[in-house]
Amino acid sequence: MLKEKDKKIYVVGHKNPDTDCICAPIAYAYYLRKKGQNAVAVRTGEINPETKFVLKYFKLDIPEILKDVKDKNLILLDHNEKDQVPDNINEAKILEVIDHHKISFFWPEPVYFLTEPVGATSTIIAKKFFQEKVKIPRKIAGILLSAILSDTVVFRSPTTTKEDIQEAKKLAKIAKIEKLEEFGIEIKKKKATLKGQTSENIIFSDFKIFDFSGKKVGIGQVEVCDLKEVNERKEELIEKLKEICQRENYNLLLFIATDIIKESSQLLGTGEINYLEKAFSKKVVENVLYLPGVMSRKKQVVPPLMKVFQGS
Amino acid sequence: MLKEKDKKIYVVGHKNPDTDCICAPIAYAYYLRKKGQNAVAVRTGEINPETKFVLKYFKLDIPEILKDVKDKNLILLDHNEKDQVPDNINEAKILEVIDHHKISFFWPEPVYFLTEPVGATSTIIAKKFFQEKVKIPRKIAGILLSAILSDTVVFRSPTTTKEDIQEAKKLAKIAKIEKLEEFGIEIKKKKATLKGQTSENIIFSDFKIFDFSGKKVGIGQVEVCDLKEVNERKEELIEKLKEICQRENYNLLLFIATDIIKESSQLLGTGEINYLEKAFSKKVVENVLYLPGVMSRKKQVVPPLMKVFQGS
Repeated sequence: MLKEKDKKIYVVGHKNPDTDCICAPIAYAYYLRKKGQNAVAVRTGEINPETKFVLKYFKLDIPEILKDVKDKNLILLDHNEKDQVPDNINEAKILEVIDHHKISFFWPEPVYFLTEPVGATSTIIAKKFFQEKVKIPRKIAGILLSAILSDTVVFRSPTTTKEDIQEAKKLAKIAKIEKLEEFGIEIKKKKATLKGQTSENIIFSDFKIFDFSGKKVGIGQVEVCDLKEVNERKEELIEKLKEICQRENYNLLLFIATDIIKESSQLLGTGEINYLEKAFSKKVVENVLYLPGVMSRKKQVVPPLMKVFQGS
Repeated sequence: MLKEKDKKIYVVGHKNPDTDCICAPIAYAYYLRKKGQNAVAVRTGEINPETKFVLKYFKLDIPEILKDVKDKNLILLDHNEKDQVPDNINEAKILEVIDHHKISFFWPEPVYFLTEPVGATSTIIAKKFFQEKVKIPRKIAGILLSAILSDTVVFRSPTTTKEDIQEAKKLAKIAKIEKLEEFGIEIKKKKATLKGQTSENIIFSDFKIFDFSGKKVGIGQVEVCDLKEVNERKEELIEKLKEICQRENYNLLLFIATDIIKESSQLLGTGEINYLEKAFSKKVVENVLYLPGVMSRKKQVVPPLMKVFQGS
């Protein structure tokens, strides 16, 4: 008979994976194996060019796709909300959740659940290695570092904390990355272009679905090095948003293009945009809203929107 | 101007406080003060005779009552569900949540949130002291130990984990408590009697309200050293349950009397008891259901009930 500790544990990030939610599982599964557990990193969707670059740079394989969760032992990283967990989660056994997002979680049994208000889940995973004195190989340090640089937009995002910077510096030493800023921008640039992508791919490349007081809200985000790229394809993107909004019954559908150099965002919105206008006290002109200083969906777009939906 | 770090932090347990949710806040507030924070332990309700005994034994004051949470910085210990948090929680700022119960939490911003599937919140707090090498004074070790012994019913409850026993042993050394088992039973006996209490007080002494798929379910629990005490007052308790059930619109209202020596429970139930019968595949006779081996509301009563309500 298999002992509980021998049973395979699948460590998985959210849907529409970004670099943090691919790299944190690889690192945490490694950590758990060092602790004697039978753990493996998996993913639930296609990886983006940035993540591909990072894994290739540190010579690590792309995790397998997790297909069926039924009766599987899961550890959820970098997400906790029900729209972001693997399908049919109720048929799985959740062992742990480690995340850095807002909390909207329900589970009928006590589990190990840890969220910290830091810039990346990889920061929390890095802390676990250092706290428990588990030696970090160069490859693992490299992907954790890359994930922190990616999720904090090279420390430019307002979600960045002292801890992110502190852990990143320790990881950089192990990973032998000397020029953090340059390496970070190199990573970001891999994804920070819309070239060669269809408008649907662009919108869904980093897309999250929220339930705000019973309203279905979708928010996609891309990062670019120049908003010109977005402005050139504005009409096409708005048309596509309108199509998706109707097809998938969104109350509000947003697309955020964030200029990581100028540290600003351009929002394209469709649906009940009165909520958007109220949230930012600004008029939406032809489906467009420019928000200087806004970089973080989680910290600067979701909270004001949610407040407006709650108050309505 | 007050710096954020100078702002007072209130560390609070759940409504209808038990020993764990009074002692863990006292210990954690002490820990935070050692870390340079301005933290104080508070409570939201009357303390029980067991907790009084523990605080007196280790010469510690009873925490003040937290009245208004508006604009206050809160740390929630030993609870996370909305029916157990202080009133008007949305007007407060939650900084942290540390708990060992199932999770049903929503908060619009990322916070430090930690739950571990152990027998007492005080076990998690004790681990923090040891991990961070914060010296534990005898008094604090004593109340943390008492809370672990209380919440795990002197290690008899199925919620007990290796970690609870491990931390309790370390704390016992510091607290200079040699006979753990005897000390634990001495603590439990302080509350494990119904003598001199009204039936309403008995039912509400450790009472939790749940929302199971839209149905309002209340579950009170007492621990006794002999079920005779309960059986003698059975009719009176059932009458009172019926009265409360109607008065406060419960779909199902339960009272669990747990015999900590025989490690069994007698349930008194009123309302839609068909759910209760389905959950335990046992007939309820004249509002009474005897469950040998059942000691934990959290681990042995709530999960099967919830499943039945979800499936209905």
